[in-house]
Amino acid sequence: MNQMTTNREMMLTLGRAARHAAKALALAPTQQKNDALMAMAAKIRRSAADILSENLRDLETARAKELKGSFVDRLTLNEARLEAMAKGLEEIAALPDPVGQVMSRWTRPNGLEISRVRVPIGVIGIIYESRPNVTADAGGLCLKSGNAAILRGGSDSFHSSGAIIACLQRGLDIAGLPRTAIQMVPNADRDCVGLMLEGLSGTLDLIVPRGGKSLVARVQADARVPVFSHLEGICHVYVDRAADPEMARAVCLNAKMRRTGICGSAETILIDRAAAETNLKPIITTLLDAGCEVRGDDAAQAADARVKPATEEDWSTEYLDAIVSLKLVDGVGDAMAHIARHGSQHTDSIITEDAATAERFLNEVDSAIVLHNASTQFADGGEFGFGAEIGIATGKLHARGPVGVEQLTTFKYQVRGKGQTRP
Amino acid sequence: MNQMTTNREMMLTLGRAARHAAKALALAPTQQKNDALMAMAAKIRRSAADILSENLRDLETARAKELKGSFVDRLTLNEARLEAMAKGLEEIAALPDPVGQVMSRWTRPNGLEISRVRVPIGVIGIIYESRPNVTADAGGLCLKSGNAAILRGGSDSFHSSGAIIACLQRGLDIAGLPRTAIQMVPNADRDCVGLMLEGLSGTLDLIVPRGGKSLVARVQADARVPVFSHLEGICHVYVDRAADPEMARAVCLNAKMRRTGICGSAETILIDRAAAETNLKPIITTLLDAGCEVRGDDAAQAADARVKPATEEDWSTEYLDAIVSLKLVDGVGDAMAHIARHGSQHTDSIITEDAATAERFLNEVDSAIVLHNASTQFADGGEFGFGAEIGIATGKLHARGPVGVEQLTTFKYQVRGKGQTRP
Repeated sequence: MNQMTTNREMMLTLGRAARHAAKALALAPTQQKNDALMAMAAKIRRSAADILSENLRDLETARAKELKGSFVDRLTLNEARLEAMAKGLEEIAALPDPVGQVMSRWTRPNGLEISRVRVPIGVIGIIYESRPNVTADAGGLCLKSGNAAILRGGSDSFHSSGAIIACLQRGLDIAGLPRTAIQMVPNADRDCVGLMLEGLSGTLDLIVPRGGKSLVARVQADARVPVFSHLEGICHVYVDRAADPEMARAVCLNAKMRRTGICGSAETILIDRAAAETNLKPIITTLLDAGCEVRGDDAAQAADARVKPATEEDWSTEYLDAIVSLKLVDGVGDAMAHIARHGSQHTDSIITEDAATAERFLNEVDSAIVLHNASTQFADGGEFGFGAEIGIATGKLHARGPVGVEQLTTFKYQVRGKGQTRP
Repeated sequence: MNQMTTNREMMLTLGRAARHAAKALALAPTQQKNDALMAMAAKIRRSAADILSENLRDLETARAKELKGSFVDRLTLNEARLEAMAKGLEEIAALPDPVGQVMSRWTRPNGLEISRVRVPIGVIGIIYESRPNVTADAGGLCLKSGNAAILRGGSDSFHSSGAIIACLQRGLDIAGLPRTAIQMVPNADRDCVGLMLEGLSGTLDLIVPRGGKSLVARVQADARVPVFSHLEGICHVYVDRAADPEMARAVCLNAKMRRTGICGSAETILIDRAAAETNLKPIITTLLDAGCEVRGDDAAQAADARVKPATEEDWSTEYLDAIVSLKLVDGVGDAMAHIARHGSQHTDSIITEDAATAERFLNEVDSAIVLHNASTQFADGGEFGFGAEIGIATGKLHARGPVGVEQLTTFKYQVRGKGQTRP
């Protein structure tokens, strides 16, 4: 029996156990799920020393492999990060339970009473890179929404994730829920990811990838089950001729520079040629002075000598860094055409005092999130009031935009009658 | 240039034209879409002679190929069926427009006003068998929900569907909408289906298969885009010990025999052993007397000599015919275990006067539709009040149960601010 066969059998066993656990979770009372989440948080706090020593093992290997600094930073745990993880689980416990919520209810002329009721999706696979905090985060969100989780973290975080999973499973134990409600793929073999993408013989209902573009691209290309994901966030701010110049400047700065590494960070600023004189120079200067590299068209380059020329590729690039592309456009129509061509249907914003232009932009731009007079950095489940999020989806079906516990549920119809038969 | 290349280019052209039309449709006012639907209905009535003569061409070929009676029946058009088609389009025009509906709206503490607004999905591919009526039906539902449609009907209905498509496109013309909002694959080559399943280079957002199990199975197995479908409807009626015997008899008869060929028809009846004496014989006799073949376990066979023995396969068989499988079970738990094992997560019903048992069944059975004291034949978009439906979905994501115009939409978030930046 070779390793491939062994992994296939092992993964199918994981899938079947998850499916079984999902049935129990779907019926678990809110209190029991919250008890488990609180117990997990407590266990993580109590196990800090163990988790950090397992994390050290991962870090030593990462350093020996000379992995780059940002990678090692994301892999690194410390007391503060563990506390944030525990607090995150407590915050998930405090969220309303979506399961069992009646989304709508109506009575038919024949007396049948139909309710559309939220239920869990079933078994969710999370495939992520070497960020150990995702383990607690994703496990907690799946549990709260009544779903079983199969977690496959990056191989370089294997020991850290294992130590965290042990805490989560202890929390499940304490609350009397099956340990198999949150399982971790118990080795770092790459073919296990492939098996998850195939759907584990129908035991996996959904995959959520968390990580960089190459991971998401692979999951999107190969998954045979539904995927909630976004490949990239090429977010735009369009500064209309009717924009308040001070607001435009402030929003552009925040949209780009508040945090440059998140998907809701703006990558391109489009300025209406009709108000170029008012807006172009102040926005460019503000960004440059804040330490942002600006790559622009001829007009932008003319406005400030520090602006570098933008290539065609820049308009379709997610920098995730202190770099922005910037150009003039001929009004809202031209801006929307640019966004349709180069955007990623994630998040786009218009700055204008003209209500009609704003409504046109909000209606016509085909993105998960469209904003008027607000920063693209609000593209976030917490900012939407969803509590924690497992990610942002740019696909159009089921979940679009921030994916919180509610988006991790589906529904069924419960129909109550008095013996009705169909004529 | 071989035929495969030609078809690939042709299908990509179709896809791009549909994507382009979808942008116009997404913004089309309700009145314009309704005008198109009404014009389509009028054109179908006026073109009856042409459509019927094209249908004759298909029927002659079908007869020459000695296709079976039920197939030829579904292919056959006549004045009454054309009138039903026209009326169907008018009924779709009368439905509320889902596009633009505000599903929810809330204000964040920072003053941001967030709305979740219904928008079309985009481009929908419908792959169906030789039932020309699906052409008008699917085209109309896609149009009303603001989606462009690419229709690929069965090759044996090629001329009939072409004549109907011409009417639909004339209606689009009259209302000033692009003809490419509803397109038909212009040849009957099988590889065009494969190209649709690949997603036409990202121009197809969703596929809805309409037809028998082998068509749906192929689409489910091979599609690289989301699919709304059900493979089969293995629907159950469970007659609990606390059932009203007369209601149980009436519902079982209706659930199986009202129409045996629809997906919501019951295929298996489960009777609680604790009330076997009251229910077993009356239900079996009623079904047998109505012309239904009954395949049962030992108890069922003992109750009436006409009952045939059920094999293991019977419990997982969708007969779509006047045949039912029937057995005793040990209470609601055993019934639910049987349904979980053999059902298709479509529609299942419990007959009981015990409210607690009913709630348990409604909560625990993991099907798109669960009913209490009502016939499974209510599994239908019209009966749910959705108006026309494009089908029933047993997948869990996005659409579950009857798929009407509302289920053919998605949503986006519109966020209105006053210059907010994220701290």
